[in-house]
Order: sequence, then structure tokens, then C-alpha cells
Amino acid sequence: MKPLIRQIGFDDGFFKKSDKNTVLVGCVVRGNDLIEGFLFDKISVDGDEATRKLVELVNSSKFKDTLKVVFLKGVTLGGFNTVDIRELSEETGLPVIVVLRKVPDMEKIERALNKVPNGKEKFRRIRAAGRLYSIPRNRGKLYFQKTGISKKDARELIEISIKTGNIPESLRISHLVASAITLGQSRRRA
Amino acid sequence: MKPLIRQIGFDDGFFKKSDKNTVLVGCVVRGNDLIEGFLFDKISVDGDEATRKLVELVNSSKFKDTLKVVFLKGVTLGGFNTVDIRELSEETGLPVIVVLRKVPDMEKIERALNKVPNGKEKFRRIRAAGRLYSIPRNRGKLYFQKTGISKKDARELIEISIKTGNIPESLRISHLVASAITLGQSRRRA
Repeated sequence: MKPLIRQIGFDDGFFKKSDKNTVLVGCVVRGNDLIEGFLFDKISVDGDEATRKLVELVNSSKFKDTLKVVFLKGVTLGGFNTVDIRELSEETGLPVIVVLRKVPDMEKIERALNKVPNGKEKFRRIRAAGRLYSIPRNRGKLYFQKTGISKKDARELIEISIKTGNIPESLRISHLVASAITLGQSRRRA
Repeated sequence: MKPLIRQIGFDDGFFKKSDKNTVLVGCVVRGNDLIEGFLFDKISVDGDEATRKLVELVNSSKFKDTLKVVFLKGVTLGGFNTVDIRELSEETGLPVIVVLRKVPDMEKIERALNKVPNGKEKFRRIRAAGRLYSIPRNRGKLYFQKTGISKKDARELIEISIKTGNIPESLRISHLVASAITLGQSRRRA
């Protein structure tokens, strides 16, 4: 696999329970280093259009032809606006890798989703993200789920996409931007 | 001068003549390479608060103590919301460097400002940015104005702040973000 891949990573902004929307920011990075552009949209809090929005953003991007992977920081954006990563992968023709800091507590998530409109479908999408893999990193582990790519290639893509810390550069930067837009300043921890 | 300085660069978003505001994005970069955070605010089109807003954003930033230079891409933000760079420098205690792609046509600017409320004061700020210096670059020249720093040190700061192209990295990135927020996608040319 060539080291000079182009990654796109999406993150959402902060929101209060009373907010209808929050921001959705995508960042395109060449290799693990050179930022080439941003995508920007809004996403509804606890809505159901996250998958469609991501598909549209990726497919309409001028960077589309050169992208090799889509990174997410979890399969929930804007609260419980959950992403169907298989649909996202199939509709964009790109592998999707979800990077997680810790093992999600599926029982807790299912309980929370039982109280939410369309909660069963939201939970189905979360489960459809599939098996959790891990990568040993300096201090502890990094977890990931993936679709449209082998686990070996996914691991390699994650490794070559990290510039600093434990997170692909596109996710680190889109987090900083989404935080700044919604809070005025980036939070220190990506 | 240490190569590992921290730069902050500000750029504004696009706007239509009918818009009251556009976005103001600041990007903090360590050296010419590592993005550490973003600042975000709105700025009024053709208003008069650009200097005050920049002073507030820089001084309230958690990055303040480690910043070594403020970069601007011109002294006009949000149309004719002109910046007094000497005031910005004195109120933040930081050198301010304005990077320009071409020599501004001062007569044309003065004529345009004659038709604008508070145009005389707006034009005074533009002139107060002072003398224009140039740096030879690969293909042509880069121009700059500066305050609170010697021309030699300003030149050196510009050179060590560029990662790619002809523009300090903080300005390149803040342009990409501000464009994406206001247009949905970054424009190719920074």
C-alpha cells in the first residue's frame, strides 16, 4: 500500500440537548501530513440522515477520485444520528474505518436507544459496524471497526494515517475545527 | 530565532453583498507543520470591529503564551472591516505580519473607500500598515507589511512558517476552513 494515500475523516461539533443541529466537518489529508481541504455541513441532533449526508459529502467532493479511506471516530454523529458504515462504504466505493478510544458498552447504548424514536434502527446500524479489532499503541490500545477492507489493510491504513497521538490526522483536525466552530476554541484533547 | 515558533493566522470567509456577517477563523500551528487548534468567530461585513475582535481572540486564546507571531492575509477582513495592525500588535504584545500576493492598488482602494461609511478611518488603518517589503520566492515575489518586528526577523518568520506554496501554514489552513464553512467545500487555491 502506498504511503501517500488520501484520507478523509469526519467529526461532529458539540451541542446542547436543546440544539436541533450541530456541525459536521470533514478534513482531507494527503498521507498523514498535508491538509488539502475541508467539507462542511450541518447534521441534526439524534436524527437519521447521517449516512445519507456522509455519502453526499464524500461523493460530491472534488477530492473524491483521490480518496482511499473514510475515517469516523465512532458510528454516532450528532448524538444518536447513527451511521450505517456498510452503506457508506458501498455508496462511496471506499473502505470505512471507525476508530475508537475504548470498547463501547453495547448494553448501555441499547438501553439508551430504547428511549429514543427509531431507536431499534439506530441500534441496528451501530451493531452493523461489526467486529471490534485492536491495535497496540504506545500507551494502551486503539480499537477499530471496518468495512470494505481487510483487517490487515485497515490496520496499515490507520498506522500510516496517524501524524501525532493515537488518531488519524484527518480525525484529529476535523475534531479541532468542529470544536472551534461550536465552542469558539478547540478543546485540547482531540 | 528558534524554528519551533507558534504562529497564528486569520482569514475570513466568503460573503455576498447582502450578508451582514461572515466567519473569522484563526489557526494555530507549531513550526510550519503541526496544527494545534482553531479559533472561531463572526465578523461584520464592512464593519469596524476587526481589530478589537482579533485582539480579543488572540488574548483570550489558550495558546496566547506560546504564540510568537500573528499572520494576516491583508488588512481587510469581511470586506472593508480594516485592521489597525499597530494596535493589534501593541494590544497583544505580538508582532503582526501581513502577507500579500500582490502590491495593493492604494488609489483604487481609496476611491472605493470614499463611498463607504467611515471610509477615511478605514483607509487610515490600511495606510498605517506601513511600508511594503518583498521576498523572492520560487515563482515571483511575496509581499509583506509588518509591525513590532524588524524586517529581517519578519522575513525569517515568514520563511520558517511556510509548509507548502507561498503562504504561512496558519493562513493556508484558516483559508481552507473559512472557505469550507461559507461555501461547503474549500476552494482549491489558498
